[in-house]
Parts: sequence; structure tokens; C-alpha cells
Amino acid sequence: MITPTTYPTRIEQQDTDFTFRASISTMICSVLNVAGLDANAKGFGVSDLNVDNHTWVLSRLAIELDYLPAKFETFDIETWISSYNRLISTRNFILTNQSGTKFGEATSQWCMLDLKERKAVDLSSLHENYGKYVLGDLNSTIARPKKLAPLTHPTKEHTHQAAYSDIDFNRHVNALRYLDLMLDMVPFENLALSRALRVDLQYVQECYYGDNLTVRYQKEGNVTMFEILRNQTNIAVKCQIEWF
Amino acid sequence: MITPTTYPTRIEQQDTDFTFRASISTMICSVLNVAGLDANAKGFGVSDLNVDNHTWVLSRLAIELDYLPAKFETFDIETWISSYNRLISTRNFILTNQSGTKFGEATSQWCMLDLKERKAVDLSSLHENYGKYVLGDLNSTIARPKKLAPLTHPTKEHTHQAAYSDIDFNRHVNALRYLDLMLDMVPFENLALSRALRVDLQYVQECYYGDNLTVRYQKEGNVTMFEILRNQTNIAVKCQIEWF
Repeated sequence: MITPTTYPTRIEQQDTDFTFRASISTMICSVLNVAGLDANAKGFGVSDLNVDNHTWVLSRLAIELDYLPAKFETFDIETWISSYNRLISTRNFILTNQSGTKFGEATSQWCMLDLKERKAVDLSSLHENYGKYVLGDLNSTIARPKKLAPLTHPTKEHTHQAAYSDIDFNRHVNALRYLDLMLDMVPFENLALSRALRVDLQYVQECYYGDNLTVRYQKEGNVTMFEILRNQTNIAVKCQIEWF
Repeated sequence: MITPTTYPTRIEQQDTDFTFRASISTMICSVLNVAGLDANAKGFGVSDLNVDNHTWVLSRLAIELDYLPAKFETFDIETWISSYNRLISTRNFILTNQSGTKFGEATSQWCMLDLKERKAVDLSSLHENYGKYVLGDLNSTIARPKKLAPLTHPTKEHTHQAAYSDIDFNRHVNALRYLDLMLDMVPFENLALSRALRVDLQYVQECYYGDNLTVRYQKEGNVTMFEILRNQTNIAVKCQIEWF
């Protein structure tokens, strides 16, 4: 019987920020690493897809955390594919601490891209090998990633030209680098508080080396909203952080 | 008998750049991680020193590589303390690939800092527990890190304000982040070539959140030189890359 797989994770010193806790980027990075490991282990990772010139592309992600784990804390990330249709495969995660308490959940939506045609691949072509790993929602209670609206009255803006250290092996700006650029807009003192939070991320368009990324920031009560414009025109990434 | 310790290392997908090889940052990060692991394992890591409010601070580093390893390549990093005096402890590294061929070497110089007094600690106080781990140069042939001169005629300059994603748990700009900012000045096409190289890094002064980092670039033949000014005045970091 196919069941979710659990990956033990540990917060190393280099994963922490000035609060001696994992940063939000570290936590999302951990979840994405586990997604990659699990897909590889089951034969549909990026290396397997590359044979056909296909790759996974993260479209949306939501993560909810009761707290950010401290330095050297260990926890388990349980992951499985919950559903898929022709365009989107959804992978869920449950994070459990060493006392056996669930302290976080995440859900991610992925498209498959044909690198040659630069077009989405119909996921029904995966049917046989993939379908057996699809387990439904199980113990997952997290709401699916939100569709985020454009900002109405951004109060801060910062422009950064995408450089070598921002791009990944695909020559795109790295998914986590967008997040870093957005978190860099949050006042330092707000990042010092360890609070429960929910992050919604929506990747709309890829950005490349040399592109101008304009990061916009807007705050409404306990919700911080961001968007990144590619070359002053199209929205490339949207993000929202709710602090509880 | 105390001998050098060997740490197996593997280049994961997220460690590679657009050339599908490890980036220079990845290689230096691997070496620094091994330094941390080895010091921890032997009882004089950052966590041990923190008890006395001390920490290790990287002062200079040199690395020589015949090539940058490809994605999923595995190799061994052998490390040991080669010498120390009152101010500086020197740790060396030899990198050996899966065919048993040495393809790289590194050497690093560390000071110990008293975090309360913000002053260097006299390393002779470590004598008893530390001295037995000091093994001399052994098979190391790399020249010690160079003392680098200020740039005479920089041809490019870029200013970046140190943000949340640039700083580490110490509230300083991360040692590798300086390197990224400098490599971001190198023309993209130069980074596409996999060549033997030597990097010399010299950390002169710490930079903090909000500081203006001015990155300067100068090229002379096969040598690329960089320096980072803190708030338009003092040189904080110097670096030189020789491409062979």
C-alpha cells in the first residue's frame, strides 16, 4: 500500500536568521527540497522528466506554521501527492515536531513544462505510474493556495536587476530568491517576532538574468502583501503573508 | 594518533548554476561547512565557543580548483588544523574526486572573537585541547591566502544596501553573500567557462544590516579583482580570482 513518506529535517546554524530561528525562506526551502527528494525517489523527479525534456514548475504554494523552529531543532516533513488533473499536480506536507505535535502544513501546485516547446504538458499522459501515488487529502486541513489580487496601493517599492547569484540552473530567477527580495521589504523589527503565519505564493511568469525586478509592498492590518513586476510591466510573482 | 578527517560531499541540483556545475560559492560553502562540522566534532565548534561568548571569525581564505564539479558529482574534503599562533588558526583542506585524484585545495585563517568585548581572543588560551589537533602542512601545497592591495582603477561599481536576506545569525552580512555580490559583477559569459581557478578572499571589516556595500571590479589579464566598501569609506572585503 502506498502511504505518505516522511523526511527528517534539521535546522542548521546557516539556516537561521538573527532570531536564531529558521527563516521563512528556510522553511519553504525545506518543503521544496522534500518535494524534490520524494519525486526523485518515486521515479518522476526532475532528472527523470529531463529525459523527455520536461520539468516541474512550481505554480502556487501555501504554508502555515505555528512557529519557526529554533537552531538545531529537528522535525519531520511528511509528503504525498493529494490530487492531479490535466494541468496541475498538488503535493501536500505535514510538519511534526519531536514531541509528535503537528506545527505546520503546506500545499503546493505544480505544472509540468516542456522545455523545448515552452508549453504545459498534459498530466494525463502520466496516468499509469503517477495515479497510484495520488492519496487524496488524508490528514491535510490547509486551504489551497489563494489566488492573489494585484496590489491596490503599494507603499514601498524597490528595484533589483536579476544577477548571476539570483538565477538557478534553469537560467530563471530562483523561486526562493523572489521570496528573499520580498522579505527584504519587511521592517527588520517585524521579522524579530516569532508568530504563527501563513504564506501564499503565486508564480505567474519567469524572470531571467538582467531583468528588472520591481518589488512592491503593501500592509493591511496583519496581512503583508507583495508583488514583483518583471521589467516594469507584467506581474511575475505575488505573495501574501498573514501574521497571527 | 590524530589524522585529518574526511567528509564526503555531493553537488545537489540546487548547488549548481546555469552551467550545471557547482558555483564558486557552492565550493567555498562546502569547505566552510566542513570546517564547522570538524570543529564541532572535535569540541571547539561555534556552539562550544558560544558558552564563553566566543566565536570563530573567518579572516582569509584561498581555494584552488582544477575544475568545478558537475551536478550529482561526489568528492571528499579532507581537513585538519595545520598551525596556529596567538591570533590566527589555519585550517587546510584537500579535495579528492571519485577517481582518487586531487582536484582542489584550500586554506583558511580564523580569529577567535570575544562577542561581548568585540576583541580578538588570544589563542594560546586553547593550548591543551587544541594543540594536539595541529598537524602541520601534511600534503598541502597551496600558498597561504594573499594579502590583497586596494584596487587601483576599478572599471565597474555597484551599490547594494545590506538587507535581511544578506545577514546571518550574527547580524553580519554573510561571508558567502559578499562573494555572490562580487561574482554578480563578472560578465555572464565568463562564468560559463569551466576553468581552473584560484580565489583569495580577505575579510577586513564586518558589515551590518542597512550598510551600503559598494562593490568594485577590476580586471587585469586573467585576474579579476574586487573590493567591497562599507558605507563609502572603509574596505570591508577584498577578493581576487585568477583564472587559468
